[in-house]
Amino acid sequence: MKSLKEKIRREGSVIGTEIVKVDAFLNHQIDVEFLEEIGLEFSKRFQGIKVDRILTVEASGIAIACLTAPYFGYPPVVFAKKAAPSTMNAGFYEAEAKSFTKGTVSTLKISKEYIKEGENVLILDDFLASGQASLAMADIVEQAGANVAAIGAVIEKGYQGGSELLRSKGYRVESLAVINEICDGQVYFDDNRG
Amino acid sequence: MKSLKEKIRREGSVIGTEIVKVDAFLNHQIDVEFLEEIGLEFSKRFQGIKVDRILTVEASGIAIACLTAPYFGYPPVVFAKKAAPSTMNAGFYEAEAKSFTKGTVSTLKISKEYIKEGENVLILDDFLASGQASLAMADIVEQAGANVAAIGAVIEKGYQGGSELLRSKGYRVESLAVINEICDGQVYFDDNRG
Repeated sequence: MKSLKEKIRREGSVIGTEIVKVDAFLNHQIDVEFLEEIGLEFSKRFQGIKVDRILTVEASGIAIACLTAPYFGYPPVVFAKKAAPSTMNAGFYEAEAKSFTKGTVSTLKISKEYIKEGENVLILDDFLASGQASLAMADIVEQAGANVAAIGAVIEKGYQGGSELLRSKGYRVESLAVINEICDGQVYFDDNRG
Repeated sequence: MKSLKEKIRREGSVIGTEIVKVDAFLNHQIDVEFLEEIGLEFSKRFQGIKVDRILTVEASGIAIACLTAPYFGYPPVVFAKKAAPSTMNAGFYEAEAKSFTKGTVSTLKISKEYIKEGENVLILDDFLASGQASLAMADIVEQAGANVAAIGAVIEKGYQGGSELLRSKGYRVESLAVINEICDGQVYFDDNRG
């Protein structure tokens, strides 16, 4: 997605050789009009796929999922929680995911009420790095007896192997921008993908 | 907002006499089409108010802010973080807020890059209870030398005094549904407000 790559180059900032920070439009400040374009792009990439539900993870995934949902006819969105609040008293599915950026392991939790057997679930997230968060969400979808329709990421760090891992497990993966390398403060994209 | 009160009665669930859980459409599963109605309603309530930025707090506030922004001409949305990730290395404003539901104290943080002097900031949140989260956000707006344009909440627990507190400090507050009492598993609304 050309406009996304341009936006990452223009508004993103690089930290070392591993992290590109997009707090300017995605992870802290949110450019809603641009995320509508992201949503439209996901709907084109996943055209013809039946989507009964969109699953993401708090916090940044919520904006992406909510602004994509209209292009799929408003399926329910559900976001996995990283900590169960005191009001989450019914049964829930859970799976562990390591966050590369934060260096922590989160246990993703989704109430059994909000994911149903047989549903086709589109998994969306902001970053696809090692693929652990998507894999944890896919695990939860399968615990529920539902199907992973596809996995979509806004930005993929291609050098961390996440998309290969997810594809090796049979999932369809689409990333809107794939970073091949971060070097000398510059971001290099894979122009054959994303 | 009549449709909201009906939705809370139909899809919400009551825990004791203090908590109404709306995980079915707001706090875990998100009804995006309905939140667009919420956004439209906020734009009517705050008609004529200049909004340069919408400020909210992760996680559930993100959906509300993002689905309201289009009705205000797509101002930037920024969400306060409850914990600073490793990529948040620049200076930030912070203020403490107690969460009634979780029984915890959070330190809300917003990067100084994403709130500017002189901006008119609309503060939005899912619940207004004791008002501590809104007050912390207003504190941050004022630390930045910006102005609180108004404070909007989807659901107010009228019996916890938050809106009186915020109004006593000179803020304009609009809540789309005001709960007067939770009793015997039933939610009673203030039909003169909300």
